[in-house]
Order: sequence, then structure tokens, then C-alpha cells
Amino acid sequence: DMSTALVLVAAGSEDIETVTPVDVLRRAGLHVTLAGIHGSDIVECSNKTKLVPDASLSDLDPAAFDIIVVPGGLKGATAMKASPLVGTFLKHFEAQNKVIAALCASTTVLLAHDIKKGARVTSYPSFKGDLEAHYSYDDASRVVVDGNLITSRGPGTALEFSLAIVEATKGKDAADKLQAGMLVLKA
Amino acid sequence: DMSTALVLVAAGSEDIETVTPVDVLRRAGLHVTLAGIHGSDIVECSNKTKLVPDASLSDLDPAAFDIIVVPGGLKGATAMKASPLVGTFLKHFEAQNKVIAALCASTTVLLAHDIKKGARVTSYPSFKGDLEAHYSYDDASRVVVDGNLITSRGPGTALEFSLAIVEATKGKDAADKLQAGMLVLKA
Ligand SMILES: [Cu+]
Repeated sequence: DMSTALVLVAAGSEDIETVTPVDVLRRAGLHVTLAGIHGSDIVECSNKTKLVPDASLSDLDPAAFDIIVVPGGLKGATAMKASPLVGTFLKHFEAQNKVIAALCASTTVLLAHDIKKGARVTSYPSFKGDLEAHYSYDDASRVVVDGNLITSRGPGTALEFSLAIVEATKGKDAADKLQAGMLVLKA
Repeated sequence: DMSTALVLVAAGSEDIETVTPVDVLRRAGLHVTLAGIHGSDIVECSNKTKLVPDASLSDLDPAAFDIIVVPGGLKGATAMKASPLVGTFLKHFEAQNKVIAALCASTTVLLAHDIKKGARVTSYPSFKGDLEAHYSYDDASRVVVDGNLITSRGPGTALEFSLAIVEATKGKDAADKLQAGMLVLKA
């Protein structure tokens, strides 16, 4: 009984923020699909890592996934804000009360698609001004978990963010074991 | 005056350990080449991230680079140990006293190619037994810098490892600025 996770990627998604949840969630035994929001062609990340998506988002059914992960990177997040397909997926996850996880710039993707307004969130610090009128903004935490919504701050928090997703789906023991095995510092 | 870094990748290199130094060193303004040790075709990492190398190692001249970075991942490290070309590159960096940086399983790649014997190193904890007869093994540090040799322990130390490479090439201010901007925890 394997949980399924969808990780979105677009041109300009942040390299570490995209690869870290894919890696950590696979280590936790989840079935992970890296989905290109504009197709399955090679995607160039914000720092020029070239990734091959596992699938095109347009070929996938949101009902097949338990978790959606939205990595940051300003240009990638801008593309995700402008994508009606990303909005459709996020609205499905919100309506089904499934796990939604957004990192860094991508808390603003949630805002653009009108997802989980009023919830407690964080983001890369520079987006606080855009978010605080619509969410309960948390400056003080590196990862914020509010029900099934998980948000976090930047590339330096990508491991802790990914472990929080593992904890939400596989439990604290699974997350603690991965943290120790991967030698992850926690604040 | 841009420093140039060569990051090696093979099938089975660890996803986070490969992408993190590429990302961080590019953020620091270095010119980074991700080089496939067996060519420039798509490489599948240990947790199935599919990366497109920038070049094939066999097409590159070691004299063109200031820094070599060897990510871990057991299967990738095993391939790098068996590669005479990787050995030729590492011997060039050692002879020219340029920066050599190895992470996780890949401290054993240095051993296999007879590089920097006797130096102070660390690695993923499980490789201590293989390394301690040949190096001054440091259990207590997440990143070990001994002259131009930088070693570190695992995916959870990849950011600190990458910042240590930045510090060695661009100075402490550059590394501290990146650490703050990327929100990286340090022990
Ligand atoms: Cu490793």
C-alpha cells in the first residue's frame, strides 16, 4: 500500500527544491512522479540543472495521487501561477483534503489559485508581503504544517520540508529514520 | 575571473548529492560543468532522478577546471572507482594542488585512485572501516577541509559541503551570504 506523490516542475523551478522531495519521498517508499507542467520534455531549472520529467501533467489524473508537491524557483512558480491545469490539480487536492506541499516562492502559487486561504503558511521571506493579507503568515518556523497543508521557506529547508511530508504520510518514525540515515540537521 | 568546477555524475550517483553542488556553485558565480563519466546521455540517479549531463568527461580537459566535485551514491561511486578516466582527472587535480571535493560514499573513490592518502577526511559513516587505515578519519565533523581536500558525509550535509567549496574558492563572505540567502542551517 504505497502512497503516491506528484511533484510539479516547470522551466525555472529551483534545482534543489525540485530534486530533494523527489529523492526523499522515494527513499520513504512513496511512488513519486515528477510531472512537467508543460509536457515531458527536458526542463531547465533555475540554476541550469536539466531534468527529464517522468510524465506530462496533462497526461495525469489527479485522483491517482495522494500528495502534490510544488517546488519553488521564481520563474517556475510564475509559470505555475499562470497554468489553469496546475489550478485544476490544486483544487482537486484541496477539495479531497489530500496533502498539498509548497516550498519557497510557490506558496504564492497557492494564492494565485485561491487554495487554502486563511491557513497558516510560510514561504521564502521576500513573499511575506504578498501572502500575509490572505494567510496566517508564520515567520518563525522553517516548515509549517497546518492540517494537510505543508509550506516551507527555501532551498536550505528543502530536506526538512520533505521530511515533514514523509511524517504526514508515513509517520514520525519513518521520518526520523530517514533524517538519521541521511544525516539531516534539524533546527 | 570566474572559477570553473567539474561535477562528476554516473548512473547511480545520489540525486541530492549531485544537484546540490551544481546549484550552489552556480549561485556563487562559478562556471559549473556536470560531466557524465560514461558520456553525455541521460543519467539515472540512485533515486531515479534523470539528469542530462552538460558534457561527457571524455571530451573535457582537466586543465580547464579549478575544482573537481565527486558526489556519492554507492552505485555511482563504484563506477567512478572502476573508471581509469576518473583516476586520470583526480591525479591531475592532486598534482596541480587544485580543489578536490568528495561526498558520502565517494571518499572511497579517492582511495581507489590513490589520492591524498594520509589526509584528514570524512565520509558516509559506513565507509569509516574502509578508509581509516589510509586516511586520518574524522567522525566528528559534518564537513572536513584539509588544505585543498574537502570531504563530507551524506545527502544531509550536501549544502554545507557545497558552501565549504564556495568558501575555499570565493571566500567566507561569499559563502556566508549564500548560506543566509538559501536559508541553510549549519551545525
Ligand atoms: Cu550517499
